[in-house]
Amino acid sequence: MIKVGIIGSTGYAGVELVRLIQQHKEAEVVWFGSRSYVEKKYSDVFGNMFQIIDAKCLDDNMEQLAEAVDVIFTATPQGLCSSLVTEDILNKVKIIDLSADFRIKDVATYEKWYGITHKSPQFIDEAVYGLCEINRNQVRDARIVANPGCYTTCSILSIYPMVKEGLIDLKSIIVDAKSGTSGAGRGAKVSNLFCEVNENIKAYGVTTHRHTPEIEEQLGYAAGEKVLINFTPHLVPMQRGILVTAYANLKKQVTYDEVKDVYDKYYGDEYFIRVLNQDETPQTRWVEGSNFVDINFKIDERTGRIIMMGALDNLLKGAAGQAVQNFNIMFGLPENEGISQIPMFP
Amino acid sequence: MIKVGIIGSTGYAGVELVRLIQQHKEAEVVWFGSRSYVEKKYSDVFGNMFQIIDAKCLDDNMEQLAEAVDVIFTATPQGLCSSLVTEDILNKVKIIDLSADFRIKDVATYEKWYGITHKSPQFIDEAVYGLCEINRNQVRDARIVANPGCYTTCSILSIYPMVKEGLIDLKSIIVDAKSGTSGAGRGAKVSNLFCEVNENIKAYGVTTHRHTPEIEEQLGYAAGEKVLINFTPHLVPMQRGILVTAYANLKKQVTYDEVKDVYDKYYGDEYFIRVLNQDETPQTRWVEGSNFVDINFKIDERTGRIIMMGALDNLLKGAAGQAVQNFNIMFGLPENEGISQIPMFP
Amino acid sequence: MIKVGIIGSTGYAGVELVRLIQQHKEAEVVWFGSRSYVEKKYSDVFGNMFQIIDAKCLDDNMEQLAEAVDVIFTATPQGLCSSLVTEDILNKVKIIDLSADFRIKDVATYEKWYGITHKSPQFIDEAVYGLCEINRNQVRDARIVANPGCYTTCSILSIYPMVKEGLIDLKSIIVDAKSGTSGAGRGAKVSNLFCEVNENIKAYGVTTHRHTPEIEEQLGYAAGEKVLINFTPHLVPMQRGILVTAYANLKKQVTYDEVKDVYDKYYGDEYFIRVLNQDETPQTRWVEGSNFVDINFKIDERTGRIIMMGALDNLLKGAAGQAVQNFNIMFGLPENEGISQIPMFP
Amino acid sequence: MIKVGIIGSTGYAGVELVRLIQQHKEAEVVWFGSRSYVEKKYSDVFGNMFQIIDAKCLDDNMEQLAEAVDVIFTATPQGLCSSLVTEDILNKVKIIDLSADFRIKDVATYEKWYGITHKSPQFIDEAVYGLCEINRNQVRDARIVANPGCYTTCSILSIYPMVKEGLIDLKSIIVDAKSGTSGAGRGAKVSNLFCEVNENIKAYGVTTHRHTPEIEEQLGYAAGEKVLINFTPHLVPMQRGILVTAYANLKKQVTYDEVKDVYDKYYGDEYFIRVLNQDETPQTRWVEGSNFVDINFKIDERTGRIIMMGALDNLLKGAAGQAVQNFNIMFGLPENEGISQIPMFP
Repeated sequence: MIKVGIIGSTGYAGVELVRLIQQHKEAEVVWFGSRSYVEKKYSDVFGNMFQIIDAKCLDDNMEQLAEAVDVIFTATPQGLCSSLVTEDILNKVKIIDLSADFRIKDVATYEKWYGITHKSPQFIDEAVYGLCEINRNQVRDARIVANPGCYTTCSILSIYPMVKEGLIDLKSIIVDAKSGTSGAGRGAKVSNLFCEVNENIKAYGVTTHRHTPEIEEQLGYAAGEKVLINFTPHLVPMQRGILVTAYANLKKQVTYDEVKDVYDKYYGDEYFIRVLNQDETPQTRWVEGSNFVDINFKIDERTGRIIMMGALDNLLKGAAGQAVQNFNIMFGLPENEGISQIPMFP
Repeated sequence: MIKVGIIGSTGYAGVELVRLIQQHKEAEVVWFGSRSYVEKKYSDVFGNMFQIIDAKCLDDNMEQLAEAVDVIFTATPQGLCSSLVTEDILNKVKIIDLSADFRIKDVATYEKWYGITHKSPQFIDEAVYGLCEINRNQVRDARIVANPGCYTTCSILSIYPMVKEGLIDLKSIIVDAKSGTSGAGRGAKVSNLFCEVNENIKAYGVTTHRHTPEIEEQLGYAAGEKVLINFTPHLVPMQRGILVTAYANLKKQVTYDEVKDVYDKYYGDEYFIRVLNQDETPQTRWVEGSNFVDINFKIDERTGRIIMMGALDNLLKGAAGQAVQNFNIMFGLPENEGISQIPMFP
Repeated sequence: MIKVGIIGSTGYAGVELVRLIQQHKEAEVVWFGSRSYVEKKYSDVFGNMFQIIDAKCLDDNMEQLAEAVDVIFTATPQGLCSSLVTEDILNKVKIIDLSADFRIKDVATYEKWYGITHKSPQFIDEAVYGLCEINRNQVRDARIVANPGCYTTCSILSIYPMVKEGLIDLKSIIVDAKSGTSGAGRGAKVSNLFCEVNENIKAYGVTTHRHTPEIEEQLGYAAGEKVLINFTPHLVPMQRGILVTAYANLKKQVTYDEVKDVYDKYYGDEYFIRVLNQDETPQTRWVEGSNFVDINFKIDERTGRIIMMGALDNLLKGAAGQAVQNFNIMFGLPENEGISQIPMFP
Repeated sequence: MIKVGIIGSTGYAGVELVRLIQQHKEAEVVWFGSRSYVEKKYSDVFGNMFQIIDAKCLDDNMEQLAEAVDVIFTATPQGLCSSLVTEDILNKVKIIDLSADFRIKDVATYEKWYGITHKSPQFIDEAVYGLCEINRNQVRDARIVANPGCYTTCSILSIYPMVKEGLIDLKSIIVDAKSGTSGAGRGAKVSNLFCEVNENIKAYGVTTHRHTPEIEEQLGYAAGEKVLINFTPHLVPMQRGILVTAYANLKKQVTYDEVKDVYDKYYGDEYFIRVLNQDETPQTRWVEGSNFVDINFKIDERTGRIIMMGALDNLLKGAAGQAVQNFNIMFGLPENEGISQIPMFP
C-alpha cells in the first residue's frame, strides 16, 4: 500500500480526499494533518468516518511527514505548501498541492493576484500543472504537482478545444461561473452561514478573482499566445458543484457537427470528460459525487457566438478527485482507481 | 376602493398579487379567477390566507369580469389574455397583462419565439410596455399595459443607462441570468420537484429563451438602432430572486465616477432602483420580498469591458410588484402604495 | 413617535425588529446598538436597509440609552440585560428583553439551566412574562417584559388549552420541536455554516435544552400544579420557522368537536392565533414572514392520545414580532400595529 | 454475474438500485423496467448514467422477466408486485419487493391501512420481512423478501433492543420521524415542487400513516405481545435522510452503561449499525450516501423516559441499500458487497 499524508485533512477538500483514499485499493492515509484539531479523533470531527477511521489528527510537520509517507497532499491555504517544501523533502516524497502555490509560472503574477510573497520560487519551474487530460505525460514523472483550481478546471476544459483549434476570437472570451458553497471552505465566517447563503445568489471577486490568471495562462499555452478573459464567479445556495457558462465569438461560421468533432477529438477517449448529446446542457446534479466533467456547447448563429458549458463536482474533479487522478498517474495506477464513483442522484 | 379582478390567481405571481393588493389601501380583490380551483376556497389552496381571505375561486370569464371590476390583472400562460380581450372589454376596464402577449410590437417576432398565433394583434400598438421607470408617462393613460418579464426587467434596467448614453458596443452585449424556481411556475412537472431542483444549477433555453427578443426590442429603443444579444438563463435552487450579470465592451475608456454619474442620471430619483455603493455586488437576498432592483457595475480596465449587475425579486419587481406599480400609475396613486415592503432578511 | 433603542440590533432577531419598527406608524428606532459593528453604517451590515436606514451602529450603553429613548429592546445573549438594568433605568424607560433573563421566576432554576449567575434577581418578580395572549393584562402596566422564547411560545400555545381545561395527563407531555437555522443566531460558528446545516437534520440539547423549564413553568401556572415534560429541539435546513409536535395522554375520551371548542374558547378571538380546520396540519410556510401561530390537533383513538401541533415564524411571533406585540400593548396601541403582514409564499 | 431485473427503475429508489448494482461485483442489471419511459434510453432520464448505462427502458412484464433474470427487484407502488407474482414466477426467480405488499402478515390490517385488496395473499406467509439485522437467517432461503419501509427500518432498529429486553413500557412508545423529500417519490405533484417543500416543515398522515402497523407488528414480535404506538412523519426540505426521535417510559431506573450494553448486545457486531458515543446525536448528514444506520439514546432521569434516536439514508438502508443487502444474503455474498460506500460529506 502506498502511504499517504494529508496536510489540511479537516477542510472540505481534505475530508473528501480522505473519503476517496479510504476506498482506494492501493493507498492508505497514515497521517491526518490538521492544525486546528491536533490530538482530536478524526471521526469526532467528521461523524461520517465513525467506526471507519480510528486515527487522531496530527500537526503539520512536513519534514517528519516526508519520512513517514510516500506522497503528501496539501489541502491548505495559499502560501503554506510553498513555505514548507524543500529539496530534501522532494527527494523523499512526491507532493500534490491543492493550493495555488505552484500553479502559476510567473512569480510576479502569483504575487500580484494573491498578495503574498512566494517562499520557494525555485520549485515553480519543475512543478507540473496537474490538469490530467492536458498534461498527463508530464504529471507522470513530476515530483510536485500543482493541482488545478475548481473554477479553473471547469473553465479550461470547457473552452480548451476551441482555443486549441483556433476557432474562437481570443479577445472575446467571457467566463461566467457558478459555485456551490463548499468551495468557500470550512472556516467560521458569517458570510458562509446557512442563513446568509441560502435563498441568495451573488457575484463576487468581479474582475479580481484569483483563478483568472490561472485560466488565462493555461488557455494561453493552448493558443500559443497571451489570452485575457473576463471571469465572474457566483456563489449558489448548494453544497457541491460548479457550472461554467463561457462565451466567445466564432472566428468563422461552423456547424454543430464540426464543433462536435473538435470536442470529440480531444475528449472522445477521456473517461472523465463526457461531451453531452446535442442540446443537452450540463447540470451539476448529474456529476455530483463523481469525478466527471460534463461539457457541451451551443452555437448562436444570430450573434456569431458559441456558448461553452461545463459542470463538475468542485470537491472531486475540482479538488480531491483530480488530486487522486494525478496520484494514480504519478504512481502508475489505473487512472480511475478509487474515483470511479457513479454520480449520486438525487 | 378600486375593484380588482385577477385571472390566474393561483399561480405564484397570482398569489403574490393577492398578497400585495390585500395590503393596498385603495384596492381590493373581488374576483379570484382560477380555472384549476373553481369553487374551492382560496385559503384552502394557500394556507397563508387562512382567516384573511374568505372568497372562493371563480372561473375566468373576462366579459363578466369586465362588469364587476375596474381593473383586470392576467397572470396566465401566453396566449390567454390576447384570446379574451375585446374592444368592448377595454372600454370598461383597464388590463394589466403579466403574460408576454402585448410586450413585443412585432407580431412576427412574437409568433416566432412563442410558437403561437397572436389572437388580437389590433391591440398591440396601443399596449404600453410597463417598465415603469422608463415608460411612466405612457403607462398613465394606457388601457392595456404589458407588464414586463422578470428576466427582462432585471436585464434592461441593469444595462439601459449604458446603452442610452452610447457608452457600450451594442454588438457585444451578453446577459447571463440566474433565477429562483418560482419563475418556473406552479405546474406539476417532474423537472420542478424539490429533488430535481435542489443541489443543482443548469442553463436552459440557451440561445432560444423567449425573453431575448423582449430585451433586444427595449434596448433597441434606447439605442435608436437594432440590438442583438446573447441571453442565457439559469435555474438556481432558491425560491425567489433573479440576478443578472451582463457584459459589454466599452466604446471608450471611462472612469468609475463617469459611469456612476450615468446611472445616477437615470436612477438617482427612482425609489425602486438602488444603485449600490462602489464595489458592492447586488445580491438577491437584499431585495427579497420587496419591489427594489439593486444595480451596480464594475469596469475591467484589463479587458475594456464593463460588467453590469442587477438583482430583483422575480415575484415583486419581476411580476406582481411591478404590476401593482403600473396599477398605481394608471390610477393616479402614489407609485409605491402597497409595495413599499422592506426586504426581509434572513 | 415613540423612540426605540435596540441593544443587539445586528443579530437575526435584531434586524427583524428594525424591519418591523421601520414600518410601524407610531415608533422609530433611534439607537441601533451593536457591539460588533460600532461606527459602521447599519445598511453596510444589512444591505436590505440600503437607502432606508442611514444611521450608524452605536455601543450598548444602557444608561445613556435610557435618556434617549422611550423603550429599550434587548436582543442579546443571556445575562447581558440583567447585568445592565437598574432601578434608575426602569424609572426612565420600559424594557422588553428578548433574552431569557427575566422569563423564569425561580432564580435557582434559571442559574441551573443557564449556568450563569443572575445579576439582578430583584427585578424578576415584577417582570411580566410577555406571552401576549395569556398575560395581556399584566403586560399593559409592566416596566419590564420578558419576551418568551421561540420554541416556548410555540409549545405553550399549542398545549395551553388542553392543560388549562385539565384534559390531558400532565405527566405524559412530550414536545418534539423543529426549528429553522436563524434560531441558532448570527455568530460565526462552523456548526451553522451552509454546508453543515443543509441536507441535514439532527436533535440537539436532548433532555437539557434551556427552553424546557420555561415551558414547564408556564404550563404549570395553567395547570395549577408542577409539570415535567420532555422537550427535544431539532435543527432543520431552512431559515425561518418552528414546528411543534406535542403528544399527551387524554384523561378521558373526547370528540373532535369538544376539543375544537376548547381551542376556540381560548383562541377564537385572538387575531394572531389561527386554529386550523379539521385535519389540516400546521406548516411553517403558511406563517413565514408573519406574526401568526397556526395551531391544530389530532385525536388518536387507538392510543388514547392527542397530538397537538403549532407553527410560527421564529423571528416574528417567536421573537421580534411578539416583542412588538408586547410593545403595542404596553403603549396602548392597536395590538397588530406594524405586525399585520400577510405570510409570504413562496 | 447474477442477472438483475428492476421493475420501477425510474423512481428515486429505482435509480439508486441501479447505481448500487452498477458498482456491485457480482450483479448486473439487464432489465430496466419503467412503464413511463418505455423505449427511452435510461441515461436520457438520468443524466448521471450517461456513458455508463447504454440500455433502454422496458415494460413491466414479470413473466418474461422471470425467464431473463435471476432476481427481480420491484420498486413500484403498493399493489403492483402482489398483482403480478405467481407460483410459476417464484419457481424461476427470487423477488425482492420494495413495496409494502408482503410486509404485513395480517391481510386485513394491510387492506385497512392501504385501502386496497391484496391480490396474492397466498404468498404472504412465506415472504420474509427483510430487516437484515433481525431476520438474516430467514432471508437466506426466502423466495420472496418484503423489503422494509424507510421510516420503519429506522424506527424499529432504534427501538428494538429496548423492547426485546423488556426495558420500556410498550404502551408509551411515541415515534416522531422526519424525512427528506425523495421519500415522497418522483411523481409530478404540486405538493412536492421545490417552492412548496423548501423553507417548510410539516407533519402529515398524523395517526394514519401506513408505516404505523408495520412498526407495530415488528416490535410486537420482539416484545412477544401486541404493541400500539404513535407514529408521526414530517416532511423536511432536504433530499435524503430520515431521522427518528422515539420516546418511551422506562420500566425501571437504568444507567447509561446498562442501556449501552443492551444496544451493543444486538448491534455490536453489525457492520451497518453504528451505536454512537455517549451524548452524540444521530445526524442524517453522517450517513448520507451510505447504508449505515446511526443510533443513540439518552436517558432522562427527570421524567423517567428514554429518547431513542436513529438516522439513515432513506434511499440506501431505507430502500435500495437494504434491498441489495438482502440480495447479498439471499445469494450467499458478503453482506456489504456493493454497499460499503462511505457517507459523503458535505
